[in-house]
Amino acid sequence: MKKLWQKNQEALNPLVERFETENDLLLDHKLTKFDVYGSLAHAYMLTKIGIISPKEFGVLRNSLKKILDLDKKDSFKLKFGDEDIHTKIENFLINDSGKPGEKIHTARSRNDQVLLNLRLFGKEKLLEIWGETLQLASVLNSLSQKFEEIPMPGYTHMQKAMPSSVGMWFGAYAESALDNIQLIKTAFELNNQSPLGSAASYGVPLPIDRQLVCKLLGFEKVQNNSLYCQNSRGKIESIIMFALLQITLDISKMASDIMIFTTSEFNFFDVNKTFTSGSSIMPQKKNVDIAELLRSKVHVIESYFTQIINITKNLPSGYNRDSQDTKKPFIEGFDLTSKVIEMAILLVANITPKKDVLKKAMTEDLYATEKAYGLVKQGMPFRQAYMEIGQNLSAIDDINPLESLKMSKHIGGTGNLNIKNTTRQINFEKKILNTKQKEYQKTIINLLNLN
Amino acid sequence: MKKLWQKNQEALNPLVERFETENDLLLDHKLTKFDVYGSLAHAYMLTKIGIISPKEFGVLRNSLKKILDLDKKDSFKLKFGDEDIHTKIENFLINDSGKPGEKIHTARSRNDQVLLNLRLFGKEKLLEIWGETLQLASVLNSLSQKFEEIPMPGYTHMQKAMPSSVGMWFGAYAESALDNIQLIKTAFELNNQSPLGSAASYGVPLPIDRQLVCKLLGFEKVQNNSLYCQNSRGKIESIIMFALLQITLDISKMASDIMIFTTSEFNFFDVNKTFTSGSSIMPQKKNVDIAELLRSKVHVIESYFTQIINITKNLPSGYNRDSQDTKKPFIEGFDLTSKVIEMAILLVANITPKKDVLKKAMTEDLYATEKAYGLVKQGMPFRQAYMEIGQNLSAIDDINPLESLKMSKHIGGTGNLNIKNTTRQINFEKKILNTKQKEYQKTIINLLNLN
Amino acid sequence: MKKLWQKNQEALNPLVERFETENDLLLDHKLTKFDVYGSLAHAYMLTKIGIISPKEFGVLRNSLKKILDLDKKDSFKLKFGDEDIHTKIENFLINDSGKPGEKIHTARSRNDQVLLNLRLFGKEKLLEIWGETLQLASVLNSLSQKFEEIPMPGYTHMQKAMPSSVGMWFGAYAESALDNIQLIKTAFELNNQSPLGSAASYGVPLPIDRQLVCKLLGFEKVQNNSLYCQNSRGKIESIIMFALLQITLDISKMASDIMIFTTSEFNFFDVNKTFTSGSSIMPQKKNVDIAELLRSKVHVIESYFTQIINITKNLPSGYNRDSQDTKKPFIEGFDLTSKVIEMAILLVANITPKKDVLKKAMTEDLYATEKAYGLVKQGMPFRQAYMEIGQNLSAIDDINPLESLKMSKHIGGTGNLNIKNTTRQINFEKKILNTKQKEYQKTIINLLNLN
Amino acid sequence: MKKLWQKNQEALNPLVERFETENDLLLDHKLTKFDVYGSLAHAYMLTKIGIISPKEFGVLRNSLKKILDLDKKDSFKLKFGDEDIHTKIENFLINDSGKPGEKIHTARSRNDQVLLNLRLFGKEKLLEIWGETLQLASVLNSLSQKFEEIPMPGYTHMQKAMPSSVGMWFGAYAESALDNIQLIKTAFELNNQSPLGSAASYGVPLPIDRQLVCKLLGFEKVQNNSLYCQNSRGKIESIIMFALLQITLDISKMASDIMIFTTSEFNFFDVNKTFTSGSSIMPQKKNVDIAELLRSKVHVIESYFTQIINITKNLPSGYNRDSQDTKKPFIEGFDLTSKVIEMAILLVANITPKKDVLKKAMTEDLYATEKAYGLVKQGMPFRQAYMEIGQNLSAIDDINPLESLKMSKHIGGTGNLNIKNTTRQINFEKKILNTKQKEYQKTIINLLNLN
Repeated sequence: MKKLWQKNQEALNPLVERFETENDLLLDHKLTKFDVYGSLAHAYMLTKIGIISPKEFGVLRNSLKKILDLDKKDSFKLKFGDEDIHTKIENFLINDSGKPGEKIHTARSRNDQVLLNLRLFGKEKLLEIWGETLQLASVLNSLSQKFEEIPMPGYTHMQKAMPSSVGMWFGAYAESALDNIQLIKTAFELNNQSPLGSAASYGVPLPIDRQLVCKLLGFEKVQNNSLYCQNSRGKIESIIMFALLQITLDISKMASDIMIFTTSEFNFFDVNKTFTSGSSIMPQKKNVDIAELLRSKVHVIESYFTQIINITKNLPSGYNRDSQDTKKPFIEGFDLTSKVIEMAILLVANITPKKDVLKKAMTEDLYATEKAYGLVKQGMPFRQAYMEIGQNLSAIDDINPLESLKMSKHIGGTGNLNIKNTTRQINFEKKILNTKQKEYQKTIINLLNLN
Repeated sequence: MKKLWQKNQEALNPLVERFETENDLLLDHKLTKFDVYGSLAHAYMLTKIGIISPKEFGVLRNSLKKILDLDKKDSFKLKFGDEDIHTKIENFLINDSGKPGEKIHTARSRNDQVLLNLRLFGKEKLLEIWGETLQLASVLNSLSQKFEEIPMPGYTHMQKAMPSSVGMWFGAYAESALDNIQLIKTAFELNNQSPLGSAASYGVPLPIDRQLVCKLLGFEKVQNNSLYCQNSRGKIESIIMFALLQITLDISKMASDIMIFTTSEFNFFDVNKTFTSGSSIMPQKKNVDIAELLRSKVHVIESYFTQIINITKNLPSGYNRDSQDTKKPFIEGFDLTSKVIEMAILLVANITPKKDVLKKAMTEDLYATEKAYGLVKQGMPFRQAYMEIGQNLSAIDDINPLESLKMSKHIGGTGNLNIKNTTRQINFEKKILNTKQKEYQKTIINLLNLN
Repeated sequence: MKKLWQKNQEALNPLVERFETENDLLLDHKLTKFDVYGSLAHAYMLTKIGIISPKEFGVLRNSLKKILDLDKKDSFKLKFGDEDIHTKIENFLINDSGKPGEKIHTARSRNDQVLLNLRLFGKEKLLEIWGETLQLASVLNSLSQKFEEIPMPGYTHMQKAMPSSVGMWFGAYAESALDNIQLIKTAFELNNQSPLGSAASYGVPLPIDRQLVCKLLGFEKVQNNSLYCQNSRGKIESIIMFALLQITLDISKMASDIMIFTTSEFNFFDVNKTFTSGSSIMPQKKNVDIAELLRSKVHVIESYFTQIINITKNLPSGYNRDSQDTKKPFIEGFDLTSKVIEMAILLVANITPKKDVLKKAMTEDLYATEKAYGLVKQGMPFRQAYMEIGQNLSAIDDINPLESLKMSKHIGGTGNLNIKNTTRQINFEKKILNTKQKEYQKTIINLLNLN
Repeated sequence: MKKLWQKNQEALNPLVERFETENDLLLDHKLTKFDVYGSLAHAYMLTKIGIISPKEFGVLRNSLKKILDLDKKDSFKLKFGDEDIHTKIENFLINDSGKPGEKIHTARSRNDQVLLNLRLFGKEKLLEIWGETLQLASVLNSLSQKFEEIPMPGYTHMQKAMPSSVGMWFGAYAESALDNIQLIKTAFELNNQSPLGSAASYGVPLPIDRQLVCKLLGFEKVQNNSLYCQNSRGKIESIIMFALLQITLDISKMASDIMIFTTSEFNFFDVNKTFTSGSSIMPQKKNVDIAELLRSKVHVIESYFTQIINITKNLPSGYNRDSQDTKKPFIEGFDLTSKVIEMAILLVANITPKKDVLKKAMTEDLYATEKAYGLVKQGMPFRQAYMEIGQNLSAIDDINPLESLKMSKHIGGTGNLNIKNTTRQINFEKKILNTKQKEYQKTIINLLNLN
């Protein structure tokens, strides 16, 4: 297929073309609908500034909707020669609608189209991840409540330290997920800037209305400086990917804990049988492979993040083709993170604390600090009490684990996990998200009904 | 010196002690004042819950202020045997104030002390970086305004693309710096949570008042779940370091541009002679080493970031000693980023666009798109106009570069860089920062006057 | 399909199964033939120790060859439920050959099968990369010879420094490619150890003959300690990937140079038109996208490398499922590196130095050092000569660039690039590789003819 | 102090100078002796080609030896203004020996001096690391022998898998250390090329004798192409750092194992009390901090490695000042790796397997595979035997762990760890190293006695 930039017979060497376009041919179909959205808004704006007639806009809109239909039926796939989704769509429009199709590219460049597409794609995916992260927080918070009164040894340096609870352990990850929401929000906000109109990187000598397309596409503001629009390619992606990295990092840590807690030596949790696999050689094995694979995924996401940072890092100003290689890690990063969150939710819902084992694990040494505090309460300075207990560990009597948990009643202690407050926060965040989702849906509906 | 945890004669093997503590011995003096602040708030709270008498608090406060004085005179340095700043301070307090010193460690652990110290250190440093980044944005924005009307070729794929201006180039980095402010704010906010009271990682069976120490230390909120407090060690640092990474990434990109623009082939900028170095072998050389070293620093910051992420990534829940190795990259990361921003400000203030060279560089090919738009204005569809100009490049007449710049008058185009708006934003952000700085200063003053 | 480890009705949760196996389902077909090779050798050895009868071996060999045939016709693809290639093959063998199929897994584990497969895959791919790297060195060396006498400015700090030549520039990359061969050889050697017999990670209580399978599969030696075999999973891959990283790093650097040298400001090379692309908006553009994409690929390979290192880094001893995630970067890393080398060879063969431009670029300042040496030859100490020339740069007379090049006649100077020696080295290395390739082919033939 | 390149009054802006030189001022004293060695060889060569008279060489040699003496007494430290060690040394020579000092820089550049210094530094340090790695292998191999007959559960997926032994566990790391020796050797070989004479990056128009300085400095060969010499800056360092990364990666993995094996739940090893630390809050704690800090160090080394790779990755050909930032991670990487190996050796020598605990840990499930093989020996196909045992795990009778270990008598099985062979290999490698060390010492002695 002819390229937009082909002015005569010399075609690109086919080996070179394959090398240059093969990633896009695989990935760009994920951007089809966003390219259509952008084209709709752009064409509408061109109408407003008199480049395209209202009638031509109608023709283009119909052709663009055909693409959406084909895409829904998975019939708009790219093949070798199509170069990228932008070329394919312009060629389709020219074939389908003639002259109006030849006008659509006025005042825009594929550089800002792809930038726009990635912003819209990022927005849609961030909304998904945002919801999934809240769901994870919600599930973890419920488990924290459910197991609030089940004692569990607390570890530091991987050694028994002080009394903890299964509730505290789940709650720690719930709160961390809520902090991650802040990273998602910052990424969402920085992504929510309209780059359209930056053209190749330096704007265009035409009186385009960037504010209008910004509004039509539902962005919060126009990203101002045209060159900055292009320079932020990769930057915004890396900020998004950093939020995903933190999400998967927490899940990896949780999976690491689960791996340790489900060894036969610790044996703290029972894992649903449909979540364990056996060995092809050892008849007795029941492995928690799912936790291992959740543990490892953070490294994959980190490598996507680093790839984006590294590609972006040393490029000079203005568009550079190298940026194309940030697409794959960006798109795959979202897919993988969604799967990881989904699996993490499934996993935590399918492990059950073994009360008896945990009770036995609450050995006396865990209460040494509490004992020292007993002496403190009788007036002994802590450092002396510490020494005394330290030299007489055997003097620790039997303690009721549950009562002990309840003694830590300060904020965030085992006796006061503050779960209701976390629930309130989660619900508050869900409302915010809900508003954003509705705004987005409304934007798309309005866009498709432009005339 | 005796360790807090030493209960009898067996000391740590000295080789092991050296290996374990040498980084802390070098770095912990940077945390001294923050450990004192935390100790003041903690001791005051212990008074309120009846562990320490008001009189004992007075004694401790005096001893703690002595430490501040010694620290100011650089006389509180750690030496081999001191282990870390927490041990050194408790030992000092016991020596200096006796029994009250033996009480100070009630209900706290070195684990939450270091966590707290790093939060306070991070807060103070983030406020500095925040200010420096705004200053950089401000300088860049002024240069954007100053050189708004100096044309410069705009590049894509490192090839001449369309007309740009020196003002657009500076402006792109100003806007990027403003986006970085959002990352700094998010990091600031997540860092602004009080971990004190998390103790070893699991809270304490004593009725401590975490809300009180939170308020005394000027944090926005208590970080709730005790285990999460410790699990967030490294996490918060990585979020901060990510903001620093983006700042240095922009500066590196700007330095890369400067390296290209100051080659003798491009020759767009004149660099102040006191900013260039020569060669020991080649008499004619004038190198812009400073730009090279600003270009490279992002890799150093990235390695600090990655180190923190990687150390944190695979650790199980609860405190682990590995975290100690995140201190060095965290502390050095701040120092280096401050220097990099300072140097970047110096550098951009010492390069001057060469008007004549830039004028000559505005060759006809840069106007090919503009010419095509000329045909578009006459009614020709863009794709046809593109073909026509593409096959007749020689037909491009002489164009007045400055007038051409002005034709891009859409938002963020060369004719409308929107500088006033950026100035407004910068001033707005300066006010926000100013408020934060004053709050922080007031908190510290109040803290030192507790009684 | 039933899993090898399924002992009764409980199947794995299908969502979990999809998450756990989806990468293997996509990638494992690349390992089919290697799994067959390993199975042939293993079965033969089981015959020698009396577990399988010679007749049963014959049956198994026929079934295994059927798999090879199916695989050649691309008819042995994995689908959901197949789990991995090892499971699929054992199930096929049991279906196809009955009882002998049920015996094939005696004394082995999927853990050592995958380890073995990756070694064999790595060997075959390393031989390919080895050859391609030599070809690249060879092409670069020829270009170095061809353009030995074309002067070109030499740059340091991106500023004109001293006279260089196009030949020296190409030659630098030829020599670097030869150093990379050493890394490939080390990787090849460490990969050339037979892990078969390590079983799950701890060997088997059966008198297997590991030396025999090692010999049959053409490995140089048995990797001894069974646990080390499994612990080296990821380690060997990272050593291989490091060699690929260096190869792509050189190509990225060369592409960076080409990007600079083909700017209109430098304009040193002419690029074959079928290697440049245009812009969809700017009619005049001719971009060297291929160089940009070669420049960026090193970051992709680096991310594969880092992924493998990071996954491997924190795992405890013995097999862990996390290792599965090292397969994708390992397999894709080879594919991508091969393409990158192929494209680099194509690119350098399609750029031509512009003699006239280069001649004009040989400005006087490049000869300042030579002039200082002129004074040195007259007896002036160098530092004085340097000062004198440095203060009188205008005194540099016109110099004949070519004669100047020839004056650097020391080893590796522009007048003595030592190309013949490099040619000799390349030929020597080609012979070594040729021997390895033949050995490998012979091994496979013998293996397929075992009886 | 005046810079070599200062031709008149304009000095570098002092803020810029501080930023540009501060790392070198801290680090370059580690290169002093190597700069002296290089200067000796270079001056001698200049004598042979008639630039310096034999008498002048004598003067220079004496001045250079003065520097060595000062350096030994730590009296040749750099201070602000000295720029770098090369400038400091030339200035010293000019002050100390007058005219000959002004000649020393003929035909060389600081660019190839620093390249040379780093090669010589790298050589000396690699010889140290090589020896330390062999010592680690040796200690681990001895422990493998010592504990060959102490059973220990073998784990896969962190679940009990099959019988292993403490000897197998130690032996796995011994063998891995031996593989690392191959990486050290490759790094040593690639580092063992003389770059001297590459000058700024493009050689010199003087008839220098590169082969002579190569021989005098003990390099194996001249690194040919002058430009490649400079382009290999960073490349060689990254190859060396990769070897260090693998060494620390193994130690980190071993430390991770130790952390798990010393939890109270596993409790497999007794750690010497002088290797554990307590807690400031919990009287009962005994933590193995040393293992945690060995576990974390790999991330520091990895960050050094990545820093070098990343700085080097995007630079164009020829010397760039960015390279300066590779010095710190390179130099610190060696120091840290040496300490890590030393500590690892100390740690493994101070942990003792707890025989009783380990014996109890050898539970029946570990023998399921062995039982299945029992049925195999009676003629049942393995897959059937597997099913039968899998459904009747309780049927596993008591087994003698030690006899069971001995049953795995194939190469690398628990009954045949092949320790003697490993010992032989270690001794063989020690001889190779010994030869290299002696060669190096002899080279230095000869160099100092040149006349």
